[in-house]
Amino acid sequence: MYVVCVTSWVKREHLDDYMQACMANARETRKEPGNLRFDFLRCAEPDNQFFFYEVYKAEEDFHKHHETAHYLKWRDSVTPWMEQPREAAKYNSIAPADESDW
Amino acid sequence: MYVVCVTSWVKREHLDDYMQACMANARETRKEPGNLRFDFLRCAEPDNQFFFYEVYKAEEDFHKHHETAHYLKWRDSVTPWMEQPREAAKYNSIAPADESDW
Repeated sequence: MYVVCVTSWVKREHLDDYMQACMANARETRKEPGNLRFDFLRCAEPDNQFFFYEVYKAEEDFHKHHETAHYLKWRDSVTPWMEQPREAAKYNSIAPADESDW
Repeated sequence: MYVVCVTSWVKREHLDDYMQACMANARETRKEPGNLRFDFLRCAEPDNQFFFYEVYKAEEDFHKHHETAHYLKWRDSVTPWMEQPREAAKYNSIAPADESDW
């Protein structure tokens, strides 16, 4: 499994819009055949920090995600709402090892 | 759900020992009644960077985890193997919203 971890910081006047856009993107991403998880989390402190935990069967499935209409709509909507650039890290899973455990 | 995201950087001479210790800790943590996930991931670049995705039903379950024998054994074993201090961030889940989806 190929895992993408993204941290974002959002301008406070756009928090509600951002969460709505992210929940819509999460729902659509979960329908992609190569996607196994798309968790959307909010930090307690600071509460304008968010985290995506995106799990794909393979790296190519992540690249396919970037070509979808819902991703492109999300990206264009939220980019002006960012307080600073998003940070992403890419990982391969050690545990769970088996796809059926995701 | 209460989610703890931990990033670690490991001295290269201890990579194998570290991975063994983490897999043992992950197996035991998954047996805790308050734990829902304990994913253990390795970064491609740099390959001595690792990530834990720890999901608990509530914050108090995370504190109980810190009192377990397997956590304390893991912590004491790996601390001298760290290249730099671990970084942790704490989140609450927005999506999935329901415990049954974790």
